[in-house]
Amino acid sequence: MEELKQRIVEQGQVLPGGVIKVGDFLNHMIDAKLADKIAAEFVRRFDGVPVTKVLTVEASGIAFGVLTALRFGVPLVFAKKNRGTNSAGDDYYQAQVHSYTKNTDYAVTVSKKYICPEDHVLIVDDFLALGAAAQGLMHIVAQAGAQVSGVGIVIEKAYEPGGERLRAQGVRVESLARISSIDGESITFADE
Amino acid sequence: MEELKQRIVEQGQVLPGGVIKVGDFLNHMIDAKLADKIAAEFVRRFDGVPVTKVLTVEASGIAFGVLTALRFGVPLVFAKKNRGTNSAGDDYYQAQVHSYTKNTDYAVTVSKKYICPEDHVLIVDDFLALGAAAQGLMHIVAQAGAQVSGVGIVIEKAYEPGGERLRAQGVRVESLARISSIDGESITFADE
Repeated sequence: MEELKQRIVEQGQVLPGGVIKVGDFLNHMIDAKLADKIAAEFVRRFDGVPVTKVLTVEASGIAFGVLTALRFGVPLVFAKKNRGTNSAGDDYYQAQVHSYTKNTDYAVTVSKKYICPEDHVLIVDDFLALGAAAQGLMHIVAQAGAQVSGVGIVIEKAYEPGGERLRAQGVRVESLARISSIDGESITFADE
Repeated sequence: MEELKQRIVEQGQVLPGGVIKVGDFLNHMIDAKLADKIAAEFVRRFDGVPVTKVLTVEASGIAFGVLTALRFGVPLVFAKKNRGTNSAGDDYYQAQVHSYTKNTDYAVTVSKKYICPEDHVLIVDDFLALGAAAQGLMHIVAQAGAQVSGVGIVIEKAYEPGGERLRAQGVRVESLARISSIDGESITFADE
């Protein structure tokens, strides 16, 4: 998605350790119009694939998730991190996720009410690197006995193994910007 | 907003302590079409009011926030809870918030880059009860030297003092469903 790549080059910041900050337009301040174009591109790429729910994880996946769900005409479910007192243990699917950015573990949880065996679930997230969050969401879909329709990613770090692992599992992964390398502050994209 | 009130009555659950669970359609699984109607209603109610940014707090405000921002043609900024290692301390506006639901304190933070003195900020959130989150966001807007255009709330517990406090401060608060009382499992709405 050319406009997205251009914005990453123009407005993204590369920090030491390969961290890419896109808070100017994607995940702290969100350019709502660009987010809606991203949703439209997910719908275009997964055209013809059955989708009954969109699933993401709080917080930065929610904006893209709800816009994608709206265009598919289906509900958005977002997995929660660190369940609060509003929740009851046995009523939740749960998966452990390791955050490499923050070097912490957290649990993602989804109420059992919101994914059923008949569902075809499109997983959407802002970043894919080692794939920990996506694998956690896939694990939740599997616990529900539902099907994964695919994984839609805004920015994939294609030099990290997460995307290839998912594709090797037979999952259709559509990433709208695939970064093949970062050299200093210079970002190179893989061909789509 | 009649459709919203009807959904609260039909699909909301009242738990002991006055907790209202609306995870079936508003803040765990989200009916994207209803969320978009909520955004349209915010735009209608704040018609003619200058809005240059929409501000919410992660996680459950983001869906309504991005849809509202898209309709206003402005960016969404979402305040983060518990800053991660991606952030730098001095570059953030910060306010302390007490969560009565979870009985914890947390900090909401917004990068100083994303709100400037020229901004007219519409604050959007899913719930208003004691108003702690909204006051925290107002405090952040004040630190930036920007103006609060108003506060748009999906569900206000009108029997709690948060809404009246904001209105007494001269803030325009638009709540799409105002609950005047909860008696057992029965929910009564205030007139709009």
